[in-house]
Amino acid sequence: MDILARCKEMEAQDIDVIHMEIGEPDFDTPQPITLAGINALEKNLTHYTSAQGLAELRECISRYYQRRYDAVVDSEQIIITPGASGALQLVLSHLLQTNKTLMVCDPSYPCNRNLTHLLGGNVLSIPVDESSNYQLNASLLEKYWRDDASTVLVASPSNPTGTICDKHTLMEMAEFLAGKNSYLIVDEIYQGLSYGVESETMANAKDNIFVLNSFSKYFGMTGWRVGWLIAPQKNIMELDAIAQNTYLAASTIAQHAAVAAFLPETEKILEKRRQLFQQRRDVLFKSLRDLDINVPVLPEGAFYVYADISKYTQDSFSFCRELLEQHALAITPGCDFGEYQANKYVRFAYTTSEQRIRQGMQRLTSFLR
Amino acid sequence: MDILARCKEMEAQDIDVIHMEIGEPDFDTPQPITLAGINALEKNLTHYTSAQGLAELRECISRYYQRRYDAVVDSEQIIITPGASGALQLVLSHLLQTNKTLMVCDPSYPCNRNLTHLLGGNVLSIPVDESSNYQLNASLLEKYWRDDASTVLVASPSNPTGTICDKHTLMEMAEFLAGKNSYLIVDEIYQGLSYGVESETMANAKDNIFVLNSFSKYFGMTGWRVGWLIAPQKNIMELDAIAQNTYLAASTIAQHAAVAAFLPETEKILEKRRQLFQQRRDVLFKSLRDLDINVPVLPEGAFYVYADISKYTQDSFSFCRELLEQHALAITPGCDFGEYQANKYVRFAYTTSEQRIRQGMQRLTSFLR
Repeated sequence: MDILARCKEMEAQDIDVIHMEIGEPDFDTPQPITLAGINALEKNLTHYTSAQGLAELRECISRYYQRRYDAVVDSEQIIITPGASGALQLVLSHLLQTNKTLMVCDPSYPCNRNLTHLLGGNVLSIPVDESSNYQLNASLLEKYWRDDASTVLVASPSNPTGTICDKHTLMEMAEFLAGKNSYLIVDEIYQGLSYGVESETMANAKDNIFVLNSFSKYFGMTGWRVGWLIAPQKNIMELDAIAQNTYLAASTIAQHAAVAAFLPETEKILEKRRQLFQQRRDVLFKSLRDLDINVPVLPEGAFYVYADISKYTQDSFSFCRELLEQHALAITPGCDFGEYQANKYVRFAYTTSEQRIRQGMQRLTSFLR
Repeated sequence: MDILARCKEMEAQDIDVIHMEIGEPDFDTPQPITLAGINALEKNLTHYTSAQGLAELRECISRYYQRRYDAVVDSEQIIITPGASGALQLVLSHLLQTNKTLMVCDPSYPCNRNLTHLLGGNVLSIPVDESSNYQLNASLLEKYWRDDASTVLVASPSNPTGTICDKHTLMEMAEFLAGKNSYLIVDEIYQGLSYGVESETMANAKDNIFVLNSFSKYFGMTGWRVGWLIAPQKNIMELDAIAQNTYLAASTIAQHAAVAAFLPETEKILEKRRQLFQQRRDVLFKSLRDLDINVPVLPEGAFYVYADISKYTQDSFSFCRELLEQHALAITPGCDFGEYQANKYVRFAYTTSEQRIRQGMQRLTSFLR
């Protein structure tokens, strides 16, 4: 946050800051989706939907799982939420009522931990590094297991590391947790943004799994605030009641617009964007390696590179601060994502154009000289 | 919920159900607001706003308080939220961290209690009746005060009773709470929908007050999911951090559209609708009295009448159930709003046309004969 506030001050002084700290793609929402939103407004579709969300959208999502992932997901298992934030809150509100502790890896997305605390729960952070692809696995769960730690959250692809947890590893975790009468939450909000590997889903893999997803990242609908949760059928009624008590329903306009996210013309746009993200990642990854900045595992998804800068500093926060002050390049320090080796790492987001990334890398080069 | 599910089943069988159970106005969003939404989409305004919300919208709200209520509210004290649900969640997440118990009156909006429980807090429900206008006051707070009960929530106008808590009474409560280092949350989501009395606000009344508001009810923007919270300046930074961790930001499109809620042409539409609500209330109120159904206090706001049907039954839930089954009129039993005298009361919502209300009253008359 400190970095963001300083960016704003600098830009107010007309300094040209290169933003590689931002977790929001630079692309506008694909035109077919925006047109569907306009169409919904022209038809005055402005009243509440049910808490679970538009049946038409849930059926589109169900067909999408079938078509793209060969996965059978009943539309009745899908709850439309105000962004993945809403989905996370829904599932945590539900599971933390009986199971007070959430296990996550460190580094990981900070809101997961913060939201757990706001909901009165506890967090057990498990340190991970390149040896496990910066992800949890069944051995780590076994090693760190505590009886109060009954829900595990895994993000794949991960923010901040961009690494993917393969389906086999996720399945082993789900099986371990099933033996403990516990649940696995899989955060798939960067699904579709993968490079050189096929996207996978855990949506229908096992009956102790909840899956979070979002229209924000891959589908380019950040400001619309719409996502979804997939839950075991037996949990839907209680989740629906929690939804009614926490947010009533997701935006009606956004839900009608999101139906157009699955049109063939939208998919073409999204695939082009995915290719651009891959090119950006390649440029960034190569530049960092050329600068002797260590990225031990090739990030295969999302739009982040988590880089080990310990060759240059033992204080990644000061590094980010100085890089911004001296060369107007904004990146995120490791401490935003946890504590474990946080001072060794920084996160680069490739949510800006290839040209700006190249310019950013020139600034970084000057800084490191 | 039972009533809603049964309505759906009956309508699936082509039965013409009259809906007087619904808390959503039947009007579409006023055209100037919808056009502003379309305009925002045509300009591709689809990226995130800051967590606190669009500065332009916050300034519009600030000017509205000045113009309409002669109240000075700094735009920096306003946080735009995903509906009033988001505002409630924000303020409860903030205050329940240190103060674990929320005081509310019984009957009141059930989500307030449910959300408090989901956030790990406790609820102290204070029974109220016609003698206090179905509202809390400083004597009641004093009578029921417990040291763990450090935040009080008052809705004015109230759901389900439609009664207004006047500014003097609210101010006495705020003063009592200030003496206890405690806070008053005033839910003003039905503000503007008042009949025969001037709308008031507590937005700038005292520095231990939080105010919830919404674009859903008076402004007719239910499905857009946008509301706001007004907080003391000293609490804003922490509330902003909670917003980032719980919902990121309210819908960008809805925020741009809501700017048009304050246009003179929108205000004209809203005033016409307010007059229609008043006519509906008068028709409903008179019909109930003619049927010897007791409404001890004239409801002066929102769009609800909370009616004492103890002359006809000692079981309001069965009453509602039978009224629906036998005459296809849907109303809400008292048990949805609390426990105190819940079996004596039912709530009628006048969110449907005057013609439908008259038709509904005919059905009620037949039922009671």
